[in-house]
Amino acid sequence: MHQWAKGLAQTWRSITGPGVRETLRYIQDLLPNLKIREVATGESAFDWTVPDEWTLRAAWIENEAGERVIDVANHPLHVVGYSVPTDQWLDRAELETHLHSLPDQLDAIPYVTSYYAPRWGFCLTHRQRLKLPEGRYRAVVDSTLMPGVLNYGELLIPGETEEEILLSTYICHPAMANNELSGIVVTTALARYLASDGRPFDAAGVESEGAPRRRRYSYRIVFVPETIGSIVYISRNLDALRARVRAGFVLTCIGDERAYSMVPTRWGTTASDRVARHVLRHHAPEHNEYSFLDRGSDERQYCSPGVDLPVASLMRSKYGTYPEYHTSLDDLDLVTPRGLAGGFAIAKECVDALEADRIPVATTPCEPQLGKRGLYPTLSTRDRSLQPRALVDLLAYADGHSTLLEIADTIGVPMREAVQLCTRLEDEGLIDSFPTVPEFPPRLRRPTL
Amino acid sequence: MHQWAKGLAQTWRSITGPGVRETLRYIQDLLPNLKIREVATGESAFDWTVPDEWTLRAAWIENEAGERVIDVANHPLHVVGYSVPTDQWLDRAELETHLHSLPDQLDAIPYVTSYYAPRWGFCLTHRQRLKLPEGRYRAVVDSTLMPGVLNYGELLIPGETEEEILLSTYICHPAMANNELSGIVVTTALARYLASDGRPFDAAGVESEGAPRRRRYSYRIVFVPETIGSIVYISRNLDALRARVRAGFVLTCIGDERAYSMVPTRWGTTASDRVARHVLRHHAPEHNEYSFLDRGSDERQYCSPGVDLPVASLMRSKYGTYPEYHTSLDDLDLVTPRGLAGGFAIAKECVDALEADRIPVATTPCEPQLGKRGLYPTLSTRDRSLQPRALVDLLAYADGHSTLLEIADTIGVPMREAVQLCTRLEDEGLIDSFPTVPEFPPRLRRPTL
Amino acid sequence: MHQWAKGLAQTWRSITGPGVRETLRYIQDLLPNLKIREVATGESAFDWTVPDEWTLRAAWIENEAGERVIDVANHPLHVVGYSVPTDQWLDRAELETHLHSLPDQLDAIPYVTSYYAPRWGFCLTHRQRLKLPEGRYRAVVDSTLMPGVLNYGELLIPGETEEEILLSTYICHPAMANNELSGIVVTTALARYLASDGRPFDAAGVESEGAPRRRRYSYRIVFVPETIGSIVYISRNLDALRARVRAGFVLTCIGDERAYSMVPTRWGTTASDRVARHVLRHHAPEHNEYSFLDRGSDERQYCSPGVDLPVASLMRSKYGTYPEYHTSLDDLDLVTPRGLAGGFAIAKECVDALEADRIPVATTPCEPQLGKRGLYPTLSTRDRSLQPRALVDLLAYADGHSTLLEIADTIGVPMREAVQLCTRLEDEGLIDSFPTVPEFPPRLRRPTL
Repeated sequence: MHQWAKGLAQTWRSITGPGVRETLRYIQDLLPNLKIREVATGESAFDWTVPDEWTLRAAWIENEAGERVIDVANHPLHVVGYSVPTDQWLDRAELETHLHSLPDQLDAIPYVTSYYAPRWGFCLTHRQRLKLPEGRYRAVVDSTLMPGVLNYGELLIPGETEEEILLSTYICHPAMANNELSGIVVTTALARYLASDGRPFDAAGVESEGAPRRRRYSYRIVFVPETIGSIVYISRNLDALRARVRAGFVLTCIGDERAYSMVPTRWGTTASDRVARHVLRHHAPEHNEYSFLDRGSDERQYCSPGVDLPVASLMRSKYGTYPEYHTSLDDLDLVTPRGLAGGFAIAKECVDALEADRIPVATTPCEPQLGKRGLYPTLSTRDRSLQPRALVDLLAYADGHSTLLEIADTIGVPMREAVQLCTRLEDEGLIDSFPTVPEFPPRLRRPTL
Repeated sequence: MHQWAKGLAQTWRSITGPGVRETLRYIQDLLPNLKIREVATGESAFDWTVPDEWTLRAAWIENEAGERVIDVANHPLHVVGYSVPTDQWLDRAELETHLHSLPDQLDAIPYVTSYYAPRWGFCLTHRQRLKLPEGRYRAVVDSTLMPGVLNYGELLIPGETEEEILLSTYICHPAMANNELSGIVVTTALARYLASDGRPFDAAGVESEGAPRRRRYSYRIVFVPETIGSIVYISRNLDALRARVRAGFVLTCIGDERAYSMVPTRWGTTASDRVARHVLRHHAPEHNEYSFLDRGSDERQYCSPGVDLPVASLMRSKYGTYPEYHTSLDDLDLVTPRGLAGGFAIAKECVDALEADRIPVATTPCEPQLGKRGLYPTLSTRDRSLQPRALVDLLAYADGHSTLLEIADTIGVPMREAVQLCTRLEDEGLIDSFPTVPEFPPRLRRPTL
Repeated sequence: MHQWAKGLAQTWRSITGPGVRETLRYIQDLLPNLKIREVATGESAFDWTVPDEWTLRAAWIENEAGERVIDVANHPLHVVGYSVPTDQWLDRAELETHLHSLPDQLDAIPYVTSYYAPRWGFCLTHRQRLKLPEGRYRAVVDSTLMPGVLNYGELLIPGETEEEILLSTYICHPAMANNELSGIVVTTALARYLASDGRPFDAAGVESEGAPRRRRYSYRIVFVPETIGSIVYISRNLDALRARVRAGFVLTCIGDERAYSMVPTRWGTTASDRVARHVLRHHAPEHNEYSFLDRGSDERQYCSPGVDLPVASLMRSKYGTYPEYHTSLDDLDLVTPRGLAGGFAIAKECVDALEADRIPVATTPCEPQLGKRGLYPTLSTRDRSLQPRALVDLLAYADGHSTLLEIADTIGVPMREAVQLCTRLEDEGLIDSFPTVPEFPPRLRRPTL
């Protein structure tokens, strides 16, 4: 994953343009079934209109000596995203109104965009800015803003049923590693895992014991420019999304080595919320569960009224909470192979838990005689550490009222272990399990006129 | 309000008699549509009977020298309420059994009544009592207790609908300012505000921007003697109250400058509770929410089984909790113009919030493009303080499931601000709002024989 | 109760055999209507089969000098329960594999059983074990394991209705006093109380004021070998239990003077849970409420899926939590007359509260005039301590929504006192009460194939 991220780090991405297409083709090399879609400028998507496509060829500031003191060739963040073309000489004071830097982070180039108002500008470290001498400067943005397309990628991995799990990540941020390359590469790795045969909680890429099998859910995996891309995507797929999606996650900021965190859905109690909470509780007891009021990415659209999809966000250090956020310091030193592996692990554990969930029902009243099956010690002493509490507890709650995930939460064991225990009890004929899918969406009491 | 209170402070009030009528006429001067009702002695009201009317003409204790050592002419609290007539000489020891004072508050005259058992008595400061020399004293209560009427005041302010909000305060306590003049004058001021045209959250008495309009709710405002008066009132209006009242408040002890507080309804979750909690949270974060078990005024009747009205109490320092309570120290130094203004403010904010509540529904799936409407910054930087979070959050919960007040609670903004935001979004066509009234009462599962 | 426990302490009990029958006959002397049942070896009970009956005649270890160094005649715990017959000479090292002791409790003989795997063994204090010299030893277990019966006792005390309360305790532990003699004797005493006429909250054995009467509930009281006994009992009575049992308790470890505690049912909110919580809160504010995950006795069976009975456990120091547990130190010094009396008291208070529960409904809107009935002070002063708050509060919640027990919880008074108040209000005609039985079981959403 870290290598993939390196391969994508220098691309000049924005919400439209060649950088997005280049990024999608790079992902397509890794996920051959990925479809690259396009929607034309001027097409409407609910309250929005697809904007002009932005192509950047070069952008720099040179001094009177002809030296390029700032050049997007040196770092993709040096130009304000969606800068309109310009080529003009300005004195230092005039130039200032087009510069962006961070006085409290002297060595960070900030990330600035202006998608919907015509502007041009440059971003630089504050240290660089302070050293810019008086004088005249030529500012050149060699860009075009003209009708074109907005692109996104979509991958459908069919499962045993048409019930879907949605995974969404975004592809419009230049350079930055935690926000957003980590999302792209973890989503890609998860898609490759999901496209292979196997059983839940198998190691990724390791062949399953027993017959391999397809997943129970179908997976809808989308790579979209943030906000406008998810809105366009939803507008083209609303009925299918509402009919099929039973759970979903935005994967973002999921590659550093610090926090684990989640943003719940607007409802806070969907399968997505419950499984993310469960996985984080066991994988990272110190994780942060943010409020839905802290949301800030495409879950804003997926969870909006009228869309109403149960989409939570899985993250390591959440956007906006870490000092390198939206600057050039959010790089591939901050995001590490180990950080990405941890992010992948929680995302995989979530989908595995959803796949493996079911309603276990005990086949006999009273506890079964586990001793005769080698599941309970035959010598009764005071030492209760030998007792297979989790096994007995699972049976005690296998009453048809609760799913295995709910039982795992009640009895305090990770789903991975609950699945092993449940399978063993099924094999012994002590539990019959029944399929279940999360009930969603809640019925609205939307008033009628 | 403070001037009105001064005008009422010297009246000899009790649960019946000329002092109540004088008080009601004083209020009628301020609220010309107030109806002054009367119910005859002996009439029954549920388990109660309207008592004889009490008229006090004079009451004093004089010593052998003919000096009046205690005289109700000096302070209305000097006589026990409902004292039967007497004129007798007693020695000091006999007199003692008819005296009431507070050993732990040397300079306070206590407030004592005996409505339903024939007694006479005098109240005095403990300092005065300690200084009374041995000797003989003449005790005179020049009162009559005979069939008459019980009076109360009632004001109906019609609104757009017949759904009502009930406001209730009491008019039977002599002299005391927080308990009870504050309730009378705040209720009177609120009634004047409600009788004028205007929009919720307009400044009181300031003309509304836009077309003035009547309130959505009708207001039923009652001035009753405590306990017997509310019982009589309810007994005469039970069906109408149960059919129409959607929320209500007892206004009492609402003029000092110390606490803000509330007593919830028996259910704890009615519109009255929710709006009072909301207003107090924002207006006075340090407020006290008491338990329904701490109730002590007419909400005892309004919330009783068989009456079942959603009536909470709004207060500053609650009866029973402040040292001056039920003594002559509860005076118009304790109750101040500023204290009354604060009490008026929370009561007004509660009715305004109820008036302005509605169910907002977003008109488009996904977030609308706020930027093109000047509601969102067009330059995207790391600084999130510029983002209109409350606007976006309001839209996110405008799903037809929640009222605006519920959303305001969820997103943590005061209703006053939520109403402004919602109105702006309605004006932009981004929200359609639907009327709603609180659902009450809960259906009873009262067993049938 | 302590005398009864002494009478049972030396019996060699196990899950089957003469010791169980002897114990049941002892109880039958105290409860003449107790039925002693038997189920034959080999009969099945759900997933289980009734095992061979175990008869122990003698068991000892003797040294080469013919001295019996360990002898079950000295203490019932010296032999491993269900030991197969043996008579052999072993050297010290071979003998070790058949010995059980507790290195961290030098003077305690542990309690060990092996019901379902053929073994023999001896238990001894660790001090004794350390002193056993090298040499050869003869181990003799004079036992038989052969087809016979499993016994249990059952007592049905009919009440006014066929709704039942289940009380269950176990009769298979040798010697030990808190776990288990306390359960046997407290259950026996409670059965004698329930078999007598009387009213709830009468003192046990003291004649009731007013007409004596039968209980409202019928009582099903069972004395069973732990686990296999309750499973056998349930398998023979499942339909009746499910149709009739409205609440129930396992009584165990209920005779020491330390903690009071409970294990809730699987649901946590049944009448059994609520009444146990209520009684413990008032009787023993420092009690422990364990989790259902801490269960360890026959509630494992009663609460299992497919049985689904609302059975909680009432205890003083819970099994597994006290140092003497499952050793010879759990004796009749640990269990005291005072400890047993406390255990009896909470169990009696629970059944009394269930018996006395009802739905009180106020007969008049508004508060009644308590003063004219001598239930309220006629002189109103600032002193609120005179006010009969509980009486007024009970009336305030007598709305047909809540049972008396729920009201007692809400207003914070013990059920014993709530019953007195409610009866007084019924006598005054201010409350009509209606019978109620707890709703149980919850409807299952068990999936159908």
